[in-house]
Amino acid sequence: MNSFGKILRVHIFGESHGSCVGVVIDGVSAGLPISEEDFLIDLERRKGNHQKGTTPRKEKDFPIFKSGIFNGKATGFPITILFENENVRSEDYEKQKNIPRPSHVDWAAHQKFGGFEDYRGSGHFSARLTLGFVAAGVIAKKMMPNIKIEANIISIAGENDIEKGLQKAIEAKDTVGGIIECKVNGLPVGLGEPYFDSLESLLAHIIFAIPAVRGIEFGTGFKATTMFGTEHNDAIENMQGKTKTNHAGGIVGGISNGNELIFRVAFKPASSTPKEQISLNWETQKLEKFSIKGRHDLCVALRAPVIIEAVTALVLADCMLLEQKIPRVIK
Amino acid sequence: MNSFGKILRVHIFGESHGSCVGVVIDGVSAGLPISEEDFLIDLERRKGNHQKGTTPRKEKDFPIFKSGIFNGKATGFPITILFENENVRSEDYEKQKNIPRPSHVDWAAHQKFGGFEDYRGSGHFSARLTLGFVAAGVIAKKMMPNIKIEANIISIAGENDIEKGLQKAIEAKDTVGGIIECKVNGLPVGLGEPYFDSLESLLAHIIFAIPAVRGIEFGTGFKATTMFGTEHNDAIENMQGKTKTNHAGGIVGGISNGNELIFRVAFKPASSTPKEQISLNWETQKLEKFSIKGRHDLCVALRAPVIIEAVTALVLADCMLLEQKIPRVIK
Amino acid sequence: MNSFGKILRVHIFGESHGSCVGVVIDGVSAGLPISEEDFLIDLERRKGNHQKGTTPRKEKDFPIFKSGIFNGKATGFPITILFENENVRSEDYEKQKNIPRPSHVDWAAHQKFGGFEDYRGSGHFSARLTLGFVAAGVIAKKMMPNIKIEANIISIAGENDIEKGLQKAIEAKDTVGGIIECKVNGLPVGLGEPYFDSLESLLAHIIFAIPAVRGIEFGTGFKATTMFGTEHNDAIENMQGKTKTNHAGGIVGGISNGNELIFRVAFKPASSTPKEQISLNWETQKLEKFSIKGRHDLCVALRAPVIIEAVTALVLADCMLLEQKIPRVIK
Amino acid sequence: MNSFGKILRVHIFGESHGSCVGVVIDGVSAGLPISEEDFLIDLERRKGNHQKGTTPRKEKDFPIFKSGIFNGKATGFPITILFENENVRSEDYEKQKNIPRPSHVDWAAHQKFGGFEDYRGSGHFSARLTLGFVAAGVIAKKMMPNIKIEANIISIAGENDIEKGLQKAIEAKDTVGGIIECKVNGLPVGLGEPYFDSLESLLAHIIFAIPAVRGIEFGTGFKATTMFGTEHNDAIENMQGKTKTNHAGGIVGGISNGNELIFRVAFKPASSTPKEQISLNWETQKLEKFSIKGRHDLCVALRAPVIIEAVTALVLADCMLLEQKIPRVIK
Repeated sequence: MNSFGKILRVHIFGESHGSCVGVVIDGVSAGLPISEEDFLIDLERRKGNHQKGTTPRKEKDFPIFKSGIFNGKATGFPITILFENENVRSEDYEKQKNIPRPSHVDWAAHQKFGGFEDYRGSGHFSARLTLGFVAAGVIAKKMMPNIKIEANIISIAGENDIEKGLQKAIEAKDTVGGIIECKVNGLPVGLGEPYFDSLESLLAHIIFAIPAVRGIEFGTGFKATTMFGTEHNDAIENMQGKTKTNHAGGIVGGISNGNELIFRVAFKPASSTPKEQISLNWETQKLEKFSIKGRHDLCVALRAPVIIEAVTALVLADCMLLEQKIPRVIK
Repeated sequence: MNSFGKILRVHIFGESHGSCVGVVIDGVSAGLPISEEDFLIDLERRKGNHQKGTTPRKEKDFPIFKSGIFNGKATGFPITILFENENVRSEDYEKQKNIPRPSHVDWAAHQKFGGFEDYRGSGHFSARLTLGFVAAGVIAKKMMPNIKIEANIISIAGENDIEKGLQKAIEAKDTVGGIIECKVNGLPVGLGEPYFDSLESLLAHIIFAIPAVRGIEFGTGFKATTMFGTEHNDAIENMQGKTKTNHAGGIVGGISNGNELIFRVAFKPASSTPKEQISLNWETQKLEKFSIKGRHDLCVALRAPVIIEAVTALVLADCMLLEQKIPRVIK
Repeated sequence: MNSFGKILRVHIFGESHGSCVGVVIDGVSAGLPISEEDFLIDLERRKGNHQKGTTPRKEKDFPIFKSGIFNGKATGFPITILFENENVRSEDYEKQKNIPRPSHVDWAAHQKFGGFEDYRGSGHFSARLTLGFVAAGVIAKKMMPNIKIEANIISIAGENDIEKGLQKAIEAKDTVGGIIECKVNGLPVGLGEPYFDSLESLLAHIIFAIPAVRGIEFGTGFKATTMFGTEHNDAIENMQGKTKTNHAGGIVGGISNGNELIFRVAFKPASSTPKEQISLNWETQKLEKFSIKGRHDLCVALRAPVIIEAVTALVLADCMLLEQKIPRVIK
Repeated sequence: MNSFGKILRVHIFGESHGSCVGVVIDGVSAGLPISEEDFLIDLERRKGNHQKGTTPRKEKDFPIFKSGIFNGKATGFPITILFENENVRSEDYEKQKNIPRPSHVDWAAHQKFGGFEDYRGSGHFSARLTLGFVAAGVIAKKMMPNIKIEANIISIAGENDIEKGLQKAIEAKDTVGGIIECKVNGLPVGLGEPYFDSLESLLAHIIFAIPAVRGIEFGTGFKATTMFGTEHNDAIENMQGKTKTNHAGGIVGGISNGNELIFRVAFKPASSTPKEQISLNWETQKLEKFSIKGRHDLCVALRAPVIIEAVTALVLADCMLLEQKIPRVIK
């Protein structure tokens, strides 16, 4: 269940407080140059290092290649990348393991996995698993040198000014959410299929694999529900299929139409707020006040743009392979 | 690419103006009683018959069982259901086949399928294919007698009053969009997986398989981006996992938590508006005025609730089978 | 579970004594010319009409196109083909439904499907389902005009002379088995993958989907177990990879090496022998003598070459698509 | 392509002379006790340590758990197991990298992967990858405590006496092949499906993932082609479905029938023989004499029984999960 993709396939594994998190990426075109340096910028972006509101937990997060790369190039076989967990404070979690944190998966996971789940630092549910997404995304991006994927925060805590939104969080000593917009340029016409494998279906599928995502909309999105057809329709203007407007956000009938791909993603405020909360202790069966220690972000959306770019790249590269627009061997 | 599901698998086929549309449903529990009558209510709902604003094309849309049902019960083998196309006016489309309709898939499909696609009535892209979704959904619903799925229109053309929204469309002689809300009660805890097979991922995947969908949000959705963590967090109140609020919409960490599942879906205004439009004739390479004849809905969202229920049921039944909460044989 | 393939995907359905058997073939390259005539030779070969030892049940077995073909060409969408069941004598089976026929699936199916299976004429288990294989194979073959697949009977009832083997069956009034050899020429180097998707794995997988198959061997096969390495090794002779010998049968390390692909398939004698047999009546719980009425073949292997060719073509076309050696659109 | 399974899914990775080989096993029931000790016997069997004719390369082959195990039990999330490569002599291979070894994949892999493959010690094609099979098999076996899987060598170099067969190899200083028979007891009725997911299809698929396998037969196998139907048919004797004979080898119509599952697998002599051979140097384009240095087995079949048991266990456990005969959580 921890796998995604048809030709370019990604499998993630690991736990927050176990030995590592990692990813296996199968189906990468042989010959693609891959070095550790390729990963550094995106891994750094994922840390959100330079912004207020991100967690003080700082791993080195250096990618360790375990397979599939030889002489600096992809071999065409599965690429395995590990990220060691080095900076772990499990005792923070041990104390509160019987108190399911509100809006965390603790309670549901405990039911589903019978109490055998690794509860330390959310275990497999930790956002640390998105290291694997980012690493796979770096490779997917390299497979499509002419396609430009760019995600940006467009609002935090309801404010279009990121600083202002973060200030709200800092003042309230509480977590806040945000909206990320992703734009892709250079896409060929014809990616995606009608119905089950529509490009929206594939993108939405993997976007909701990112923790804290609560909504996605393409093109004009929810606002389109208030428009008339003649307002919303994008008239084709030239033989390249360029449209006058782009309410569709680059996808019609499930298929890319060559215009800019645009979608927006809603991130809720992180559940792990520094404020005192109340929950039910499932051992004592009593409500208890508690505070979440650990180290957490005031705004998880800050780290999200690079993750959204990564998973978008995975979907697009897979579609490109299916449409034979990326070769299996890169010479 | 026209398939969905892991254990309960659905394959759709057919064209709007070909001989039929249909569906193969594999993995249905043996012994499930299935009769033609089971389908009539939902098929009727899909027609949106009794509401203004739906297309005058009225097929009988009677389900023809071709396999997998014996003595009124599912055999456990693939169930094939056909819907014959009886009321076809292809000449409406023949005339305009070189003018890609704005915001329709015509242009992109022509590029992707090399001009070999059946363009009559949108061919395989026709919303008529959703007959297969509805039929499969009827069976999936029957596999989960204790789970109640209900989708309703909550706004049309930006109005919360359906009548008022439709009136806007009728007055403007233009198409309008709408928002559908789906609620599911009776779900067990533990459906869905972290990451790629999160319940949101699976639901969003199949929801975007429905034509004209532009957005989806779970629980509080996009509005959650304006809330603080302590506002948004749902505190667990009892040992059944009931939460005080339900901002999460019944899913945490990708997994159902036993509370009501809630999501909303945005439908754009249909591209086929009765108004005159302009597009590029790809033969003459000139812009042309044209009107869409055919028979079309002023508001496709009117037919959508039953389709949303159907695909939701498909996802949930598949998850239930995976979690061994539906038996493979029903005695 | 009734599906096969990655890009070229085949779904079969139907029952022997239901309304039809059929197949959905998804992923066929758009533009491929397809007419009913294309199917006639292979469908005729499947009937084994002109040979002694084949069943007197003679359906017209005419392919009815229900979707995916427009103006005589594949559209790129799912192709559905039905074969109506016209010549059904269900009463033959009704009488003996509580007596599981020896070496038939009756007993196991009854346990697995809880008695809800369609038992008439073996229902979904009927070799009549292989009509779908043959139809899909015709299309797959057409996608690879430069690849020649040819399967032939090389022994019947242990005799290398087919006539002599059949004579044994006729004299004994009993069924007999046989061995089919399949050879493929014109394959490119590089189809198949190491390990799980080795070309042998994919071929063996689908070959064992054919009823009555009990074994498969590639190249020198079981006899290779008696050879020394230096005897068995195939030395490469030229820059095209042509080998001096071909003990490998065209596959090394799971991958086609450009030499002739060769494998052999063992078919057991059909379980439905005209002779009186004994089995346990699961209603009376007593052993009973009984004879199989119905209409059956003395040697199912006679019909098998075309079925083997068909499924081989399906695997190869899927691998060719994956390796981008067949285009998605054929102009 | 390096993945297998529906609910219990296995992904393998690594290269012979890279940093490690490994496996990700997803879908393991939460709560299953797993310790390093569980692996030692089967890993030792895979080394074939105590038998003549196995390679002198001796790694420690100790399983390193990287994810999915917590407090000695499966968490229900992906289990990652690595085996470090410690004893690597790459220079043996460097010298001959332009001479494709006869009947090795060198030449075909070079074509398919464009020369980017890791050629050292056969890279990803190395039988060392079967460490992952064995490790996954240990876990699959533990999921089915009441099912007994046992594979044994039944012939070496055409001799039923293993010692005698090996003696032939040692005397000839050449490699030899062999046949392994696998028997499974305790299987429930009903595993496998008709056609594409027949139990034979699934087993054959994964058996051919093992390097050097050239054939497989179930029950009486190829010999069944010489029998009459009445000889081959297995009459059911009691209400448990026990048959008088077991020519079917425990599978009818693709489905387990509760009798002993039996199949045999043919292993060719290893391609890496110590004898001098001739091949085409693809740089000089001339035929050259050469000898394979490295460290290799005289009879790879000696290590094979435990590998066959492992992959058989993977298929059976996956089928058991699908049939809901193994719970998702083991308490």
